Amino acid sequence: MSNQAAPVLDPRSDIADLTAAIVDIESVSGNEKALADAVEAALREHAPHLEVLRDRDTVIARTHRGLPQRVLLAGHLDTVPLADNLPSTRRTRDGREELVGRGTCDMKGGVAVFLKLAVEADSAPSDLTWIFYDHEEVAAADNALTRIADEHPEYLEADFAILGEPTSAGVEGGCKGTMKLEVTARGIAAHSARDWVGDNAIHHLAPVLERLAAYEARRAVIDGLEYRECLNAVSICGGIAGNVIPDRVSAVLNYRFAPDTSLEQAEAHVREVLAGLDLEIEVTDAAGGALPGLDNDAARGFLAALGQDVPLAAKQGWTDVARFSALGTPAVNFGPGDPLLAHTDDEHVPLADLEAALAGLRRFLAA
Amino acid sequence: MSNQAAPVLDPRSDIADLTAAIVDIESVSGNEKALADAVEAALREHAPHLEVLRDRDTVIARTHRGLPQRVLLAGHLDTVPLADNLPSTRRTRDGREELVGRGTCDMKGGVAVFLKLAVEADSAPSDLTWIFYDHEEVAAADNALTRIADEHPEYLEADFAILGEPTSAGVEGGCKGTMKLEVTARGIAAHSARDWVGDNAIHHLAPVLERLAAYEARRAVIDGLEYRECLNAVSICGGIAGNVIPDRVSAVLNYRFAPDTSLEQAEAHVREVLAGLDLEIEVTDAAGGALPGLDNDAARGFLAALGQDVPLAAKQGWTDVARFSALGTPAVNFGPGDPLLAHTDDEHVPLADLEAALAGLRRFLAA
Repeated sequence: MSNQAAPVLDPRSDIADLTAAIVDIESVSGNEKALADAVEAALREHAPHLEVLRDRDTVIARTHRGLPQRVLLAGHLDTVPLADNLPSTRRTRDGREELVGRGTCDMKGGVAVFLKLAVEADSAPSDLTWIFYDHEEVAAADNALTRIADEHPEYLEADFAILGEPTSAGVEGGCKGTMKLEVTARGIAAHSARDWVGDNAIHHLAPVLERLAAYEARRAVIDGLEYRECLNAVSICGGIAGNVIPDRVSAVLNYRFAPDTSLEQAEAHVREVLAGLDLEIEVTDAAGGALPGLDNDAARGFLAALGQDVPLAAKQGWTDVARFSALGTPAVNFGPGDPLLAHTDDEHVPLADLEAALAGLRRFLAA
Repeated sequence: MSNQAAPVLDPRSDIADLTAAIVDIESVSGNEKALADAVEAALREHAPHLEVLRDRDTVIARTHRGLPQRVLLAGHLDTVPLADNLPSTRRTRDGREELVGRGTCDMKGGVAVFLKLAVEADSAPSDLTWIFYDHEEVAAADNALTRIADEHPEYLEADFAILGEPTSAGVEGGCKGTMKLEVTARGIAAHSARDWVGDNAIHHLAPVLERLAAYEARRAVIDGLEYRECLNAVSICGGIAGNVIPDRVSAVLNYRFAPDTSLEQAEAHVREVLAGLDLEIEVTDAAGGALPGLDNDAARGFLAALGQDVPLAAKQGWTDVARFSALGTPAVNFGPGDPLLAHTDDEHVPLADLEAALAGLRRFLAA
């Protein structure tokens, strides 16, 4: 297989080889075209049972077999920027074979599993929609699913959705919500040799940081899964000059909240944590979470097919499952790779994860 | 008088006109040449009793009359950047005539008084050294006095020094020292949805800001003058991305300390304030203060000439008097203009201040 001039993907090849081939088609957000072309070509060539649609750099493939239930499986094609970690390499570490490189974990392993099964699963017990999409690793407004939900909401219709985000081939249900708030303290500028005529804005943040440092985060157990909330200052910035007491300083807080909490409740909670302090607080970004989505027939069927030993946990980070949840479609995360390795310079995926995810999903689609 | 093509200064003109002419020769730090040329030309033309030296954009003029005592009078020619406040204007406010514009206060009023008296005072009771220098409003390393102290320390020899910095025509003795310290807290980076695997560096600054906010600054009374110390965070900066717990955050503290405190003592004091906290603390900049310098014959003579009603206070901001103090030369600040107006957009000087400073210094040099 050559990935050089006109990359070609062979979905019938070994899952590790297929993952490497997908990884080696560089597709940092905004540069997904070559990979989308290769995925589209592979589906058109090898999966005659699928209707294949192309929407910019997103490829949608689906069956229309008139079955009572539709399962949607979605994976993004893009990655965060490279860290001098392409093309991929293989290594054996602690007796474990790994594929190393940008995208191996987040989430081209999942894309490879989905592409292989899209071709293979021509007689699944449900109708299937496969979505390989662009621009996930960037602002939500640029995410292809935002565009498709606007322009072609029918493409996203399903009874259950599986997102191929890395979960070490376990099931991670739902996801927490996220909210960013800019917190600004104001004072009075003055020369730093005469601070008594001013009021240092930076010092006003002392109780904010103190409350954040002492914050005891809630652990919400929903459908048996534990969502650990987090409230943090993710940035802080202030200062005018080395000899000036600044009259303004801002911190950005990020609140990650359990999916039983609405955006309104999340904002009210942060305001309560900061109650009584003289601050301006503005929500600058927010996205609700997703409930686990395990209490429906399709999800139960999925868990049964994976077997009782499959690790089952809450998804802590926000993922696109929240979009499906918002559309009324229960959704889970399931894919090869350790989510803690996503975006790291040493991003890699164990080959055993690829095999496990492939085998589990294959059982579900053959059930 | 024309300040357009080849600006000319006439030291015999009215002090307000002379100040305006000096102000209108723009001389933001690095651009002092035209003003230095005009000052040098005026001295060469109008003060045959002076030896005039030129060192880059610094002009030194001195008498050699063999008198037992030498008084040095120094003023910087440069200003901070403009705020659309040149050329200068005159206004009357609350019945008070003012000259408005960049440099009127800091410190071209003082330069005008010095230039006028340099020409006039050809028979003072002391030998005199007048220094009009460049690059005061920038890093200490670029200050012309740093260069001259290195290359021509003999130019700075004197028994008493008067710096023409704005003091509202009162005497401000000595100055506080200043020290900048970079305080860094370290943690462990993590995804902001999984903060329990990380350690938020920003939150580590909570006790730092708390201690600064609660800090009770010392007021040191030295020779009857009160130096109010100040300890502030003047900047703070940290953050990697909106979804990352940062592993590092830094704040810059500025400690302004009374002139009875050495650099070593100042650093030890800040370290004591922050004792017990897990921080890296690095001194990034420091300059010692200057004792009031009023307990010598020349200073006593100066105060006597000004009269018992002259306001006498501690200089809170660091000034070049500290350099003279370090050279063993007692030094005071004395000049027209309110020091709180220095560097402000509404920088101005009352004409009465110009007259008062001129009259007081004239009495001293005639004594």
